[in-house]
Amino acid sequence: MKNTTVDKILDIVSGIKELPKGAFNIRVNGKSVKRSSSENVEIIPRPAGDGMDIHIAPGTKNEMVHIPVVMDASGMNDLVYNNFYIGEGAEVNIVAGCGIHNDGDHLTQHDGIHTFYVGKGAKVKYTEKHYGEGGGTGSKVLNPVTEVHLEADSVLEIETVQIEGVDKTDRTTRGDVKENAKLLIKEKLLTNGEQEAITRFSVDLDGENSSTTVSSRSVAKGQSKQYFYSVLNGNNKCAGHSECDAIIMDQGFVKAVPDVTANHVEASLIHEAAIGKIAGDQIIKLETLGLTEAEAEERIVAGFLGI
Amino acid sequence: MKNTTVDKILDIVSGIKELPKGAFNIRVNGKSVKRSSSENVEIIPRPAGDGMDIHIAPGTKNEMVHIPVVMDASGMNDLVYNNFYIGEGAEVNIVAGCGIHNDGDHLTQHDGIHTFYVGKGAKVKYTEKHYGEGGGTGSKVLNPVTEVHLEADSVLEIETVQIEGVDKTDRTTRGDVKENAKLLIKEKLLTNGEQEAITRFSVDLDGENSSTTVSSRSVAKGQSKQYFYSVLNGNNKCAGHSECDAIIMDQGFVKAVPDVTANHVEASLIHEAAIGKIAGDQIIKLETLGLTEAEAEERIVAGFLGI
Repeated sequence: MKNTTVDKILDIVSGIKELPKGAFNIRVNGKSVKRSSSENVEIIPRPAGDGMDIHIAPGTKNEMVHIPVVMDASGMNDLVYNNFYIGEGAEVNIVAGCGIHNDGDHLTQHDGIHTFYVGKGAKVKYTEKHYGEGGGTGSKVLNPVTEVHLEADSVLEIETVQIEGVDKTDRTTRGDVKENAKLLIKEKLLTNGEQEAITRFSVDLDGENSSTTVSSRSVAKGQSKQYFYSVLNGNNKCAGHSECDAIIMDQGFVKAVPDVTANHVEASLIHEAAIGKIAGDQIIKLETLGLTEAEAEERIVAGFLGI
Repeated sequence: MKNTTVDKILDIVSGIKELPKGAFNIRVNGKSVKRSSSENVEIIPRPAGDGMDIHIAPGTKNEMVHIPVVMDASGMNDLVYNNFYIGEGAEVNIVAGCGIHNDGDHLTQHDGIHTFYVGKGAKVKYTEKHYGEGGGTGSKVLNPVTEVHLEADSVLEIETVQIEGVDKTDRTTRGDVKENAKLLIKEKLLTNGEQEAITRFSVDLDGENSSTTVSSRSVAKGQSKQYFYSVLNGNNKCAGHSECDAIIMDQGFVKAVPDVTANHVEASLIHEAAIGKIAGDQIIKLETLGLTEAEAEERIVAGFLGI
């Protein structure tokens, strides 16, 4: 890693300052540049070079897997397929992330198709950070699709963060959840300028006592546009909760369309959405502490998004 | 009114035991059978016989208008257009309602297309009760469309109730709301057997300080199906609130799809939906007071719907 742009972006999207411990794969401009398996985590590249299969052994504990993607070649369109096979009872922390540096005038796009097979009783945390930068006029676009299948008693926690620099994103996360399994999806999103972000969550609660919480916290600044779609299907005795909290600033636009369906008498489903600007009294309170209005807004947004 | 079926249904849908005071129009089997205007309320039948224009004089206070519809002829399909012109500052209470008695084997259907022009500062309460009965195999179907236009500073409160006997209903209520005006829509719904009910609310909050609360309380028993769609568009500084509370019993099915959009930085929009069965501890509490489980459920449902 001698390209300073790449190094910087790797740090931003996945907190990597040097080669990480544990298994990892670093993909730069459409190619795997460094890869390492560990005793319990085997990373097998797909023959076509368009992704990998990641096998996590049953019973693995406290292991990290890093799979960052960086693109700094303007005009590139990278489509990858990553499949995660997580063994029974494994506990693992997977850090993905995609950063684009586009100094050119062409569209640079990364679309990751991720599929998770979460084994019985496994506990997985998956973090995905999206970031864009660069002074060119070329767009930075990220359209990930994440498909997750949770076996009985498993837990999958997905956290996605997109704070800066992605011009367009259309993110789909679909899941099916078996008995006693739990799927948690949390996104943090900030858009600005002419950016556009579409979030699509869809969860089938198939197993008895399955549960899910899908939540979005977002801030829409400038003329940016956000669309939030969230589908929950309660197909068994289950608990589902969808929530969307959005702050609008400037000429921001936010649309929230949840879609909750009870197909079973013991399905318990809740949706909440709140869209509004920052309350005036919150700003005034911080102004009395010596902050300018802009500083107060910045502080409130950071607190709201937890960044 | 010598037809006892008609008399009974008139009482159920609009609380009329004798000819009401104030202006009224009673429509039976597709024809207006009794009509009376009052000093401030003029009811003008449309030439084609398919509805009426109702003019309420500016400044009218404490006036009631009754416009019930009864159908007891199996196989009839009645489509009516009623237009309400409510003068500035008028305060009026309008009671509509439609009851179908179908002893035959043919579909009996009533579709009321209602349009309200609510003048500046007017305050209107509009109640619509839907009811079906009869031992035939013919369906009882009601597909009303209500379109409302609220001028500045006006208030319109719509309350719809459908507790029993309507096989299929697809109800659309659309509104646009000007500055400082307020639209309240409340529905109470109980479906049973193979019944199907679709609710479609759509409100544009166009004026500064316009507001709306749209709410649905419903119970789905048997194999019945309910669909709830609610669209709120915040196009100015405004406050919008959509809520859907549904109890499912037996093999009931409920789908709730709100759609809230902030097109303005000072639009404040909230949606809440909760779908679930009656809490077990509520039933147990009533059982300890000597009620059977069925009685306890009935009591809880009645309390929930406020009937």
